[in-house]
Amino acid sequence: MQNTAEARRISVFDTTLRDGEQAPGNALTPQQKLDIALRIEALGVDYIEAGFPASSPSEFRAAQLISRNLTRARFTTFARAVRQDVATAVEAGGTENHQVQVAATGSDMHLRHKRGITREQGVAEVADAVAYARSLGVAEVSVGIEDASRGEHELLRAITEGAIEAGATCIVVADTSGALTPEEYAGLIRTFRAWAPAPIRIATHCHQDFGLSLANAIAGLQAGADEVQATLGGIGERAGNTPLEEVAALLAYKRDRLGIYTDIDLAAMYEAYTHLRKAIRLEEPRNKAIFGTYAFGTAAGIHQQGLLRNPATYEYVEPARFGRERSILIGRHSGRAVLRHLVDEIGVSVDEARIDELYRVHIAERVGGDCEDLSVLKERLIKSFEGAGELVGT
Amino acid sequence: MQNTAEARRISVFDTTLRDGEQAPGNALTPQQKLDIALRIEALGVDYIEAGFPASSPSEFRAAQLISRNLTRARFTTFARAVRQDVATAVEAGGTENHQVQVAATGSDMHLRHKRGITREQGVAEVADAVAYARSLGVAEVSVGIEDASRGEHELLRAITEGAIEAGATCIVVADTSGALTPEEYAGLIRTFRAWAPAPIRIATHCHQDFGLSLANAIAGLQAGADEVQATLGGIGERAGNTPLEEVAALLAYKRDRLGIYTDIDLAAMYEAYTHLRKAIRLEEPRNKAIFGTYAFGTAAGIHQQGLLRNPATYEYVEPARFGRERSILIGRHSGRAVLRHLVDEIGVSVDEARIDELYRVHIAERVGGDCEDLSVLKERLIKSFEGAGELVGT
Repeated sequence: MQNTAEARRISVFDTTLRDGEQAPGNALTPQQKLDIALRIEALGVDYIEAGFPASSPSEFRAAQLISRNLTRARFTTFARAVRQDVATAVEAGGTENHQVQVAATGSDMHLRHKRGITREQGVAEVADAVAYARSLGVAEVSVGIEDASRGEHELLRAITEGAIEAGATCIVVADTSGALTPEEYAGLIRTFRAWAPAPIRIATHCHQDFGLSLANAIAGLQAGADEVQATLGGIGERAGNTPLEEVAALLAYKRDRLGIYTDIDLAAMYEAYTHLRKAIRLEEPRNKAIFGTYAFGTAAGIHQQGLLRNPATYEYVEPARFGRERSILIGRHSGRAVLRHLVDEIGVSVDEARIDELYRVHIAERVGGDCEDLSVLKERLIKSFEGAGELVGT
Repeated sequence: MQNTAEARRISVFDTTLRDGEQAPGNALTPQQKLDIALRIEALGVDYIEAGFPASSPSEFRAAQLISRNLTRARFTTFARAVRQDVATAVEAGGTENHQVQVAATGSDMHLRHKRGITREQGVAEVADAVAYARSLGVAEVSVGIEDASRGEHELLRAITEGAIEAGATCIVVADTSGALTPEEYAGLIRTFRAWAPAPIRIATHCHQDFGLSLANAIAGLQAGADEVQATLGGIGERAGNTPLEEVAALLAYKRDRLGIYTDIDLAAMYEAYTHLRKAIRLEEPRNKAIFGTYAFGTAAGIHQQGLLRNPATYEYVEPARFGRERSILIGRHSGRAVLRHLVDEIGVSVDEARIDELYRVHIAERVGGDCEDLSVLKERLIKSFEGAGELVGT
């Protein structure tokens, strides 16, 4: 465990608009991308990946718009390891504050079965594209090594060393297919760190195929990576990417233990996510860390018994820090504690037999799975007490 | 790293119908609970938690139905540490194959702010309820220690030792508020292991508040726990519980590395989840490990270029093992490779200029974020080739 004074700031690279937006169902217009980019910039991320300008006129336009409108964050564009893609990226976004991310092919499987090229060609194309980007005046060139998690070390090392020699400033270690455990990913980052010492930067890029995208990214950062690639809500290819909100929340609570931190504005994330969610027509998930509809809600009697007396009993992660509200919901699993609480709030005096009756009518005999907010039941109780004359004179 | 011969089988405790079902929006009828229980039993889980019989007539009835209809899995019912709850549980489910899980209050915060009782009372009520259950003929009595992750060690040890002396057979170490990192949770399990050596069993119970429910559960199992508590799709309080499908998938692929395994039927999980999802009226998530709509789908050109040649390029986790299908979707992020693939399949001979034109019309100039299946575009291409007379004679 490290103390606060020693904690290391990690930079946050947001790929919501590239890896997130390219996933099925998530395509946005350039104007929508700009809107989301500005909201993500306001969260305090360091880099915003705007898209892949060479892939379509729409992507080109989005990169152009984003590059001209960000005021604080740097932006990144994605390019294959070919000069034309790099030239198009620079044409769209210029060179100021612009990091170009060149895609490297990191495994023999990808070289053979996707690209049909040799290792030597794979290494050479990356070095060439990096050198070309630098020659155009791009100060920061990152190399995103696809399938690094299944790549052969000899190949990965040759790509990394060739890229650095050509002027690359950052190496992205992509677990493209979500194949690794935290321990395996940490080992891979340590290996890369030996090939690419500071001031070269190393970034994580993890996927959620097993549900380990956060644990893998954190293990990679603890093993020496400088930067985390993440997306709002974890949107992305297949099962998704490392969720930005999970990284930010975990490091806000565990900075001392993990020895790393970010400067993300926790309270603003949910609103930015809500805008994104509406733009990509995604229903709000019921259960999801930080962003789920019920991430800070419960309908269960035992939990409500605690929450009504002291929220800390069931909240380690606190809703107010994330711009969310606690919700106490009434459903079939609620108990007598919530009724006693409401009756006391309303200010009527009832005995335990009456609480039992209210419990039977309003909770135990409910039909269906739906819940209602505490305030709705309170209104109903007030009306029934008024109807029975029990509120007269109180 | 351990080899296969040394791998340890961990048992799977499914709490979909208790922690999952009690979460807002998820309440089921007894008949629905039975249906889901039978489907979960068919997956090969060891224990199915049927619910909390003392909490309502509906829960009582569900426990009754489930206890009478399971043929292979054992079932568990939840009880507060009071004799009446234990008696009600036994009245509903009998004693055969029935594990009663007694809830213990594991932290001073919960004792003071939820329960209003002393440590001594908290320790004594658990021992009493356990002894009472054993006296009724319940062979397996588990003690679920709520808020163990924030509990004081002196209290946790007293609860554990008192429960074992009274006849408890299993201790559940609950990170009720989802407060721990994998390293912290592993440390806690090691501490409990020292207090509760074999043949006492130790189970994990983790929450997703930070997005670490799988990583924490696996860390706990590697640290010596015997059993994992999980839910289908990770449904549960707040952000949810450890997803059963993630545990099963990870251990299927990483058995050798992690040294543990389960006997879950991977191919049947998605269908069981789909039934559950429909019963609780939950929309299928877009991106989610194993169960997301697009967990095995992509619309991106670079990914499709690989997948069409060799699915292994982008699939480490394989859809067929999970009863799912790969989906190649056409969207604005698709590329020329998928058009070349379709044209070759259709059997027409077209040059690169024609591919460019098809790309412009069918991909680059698409409007909106929606995708379509490969087969839909294929039909459209066939019609356009027929219209142009290009399919004549082929």
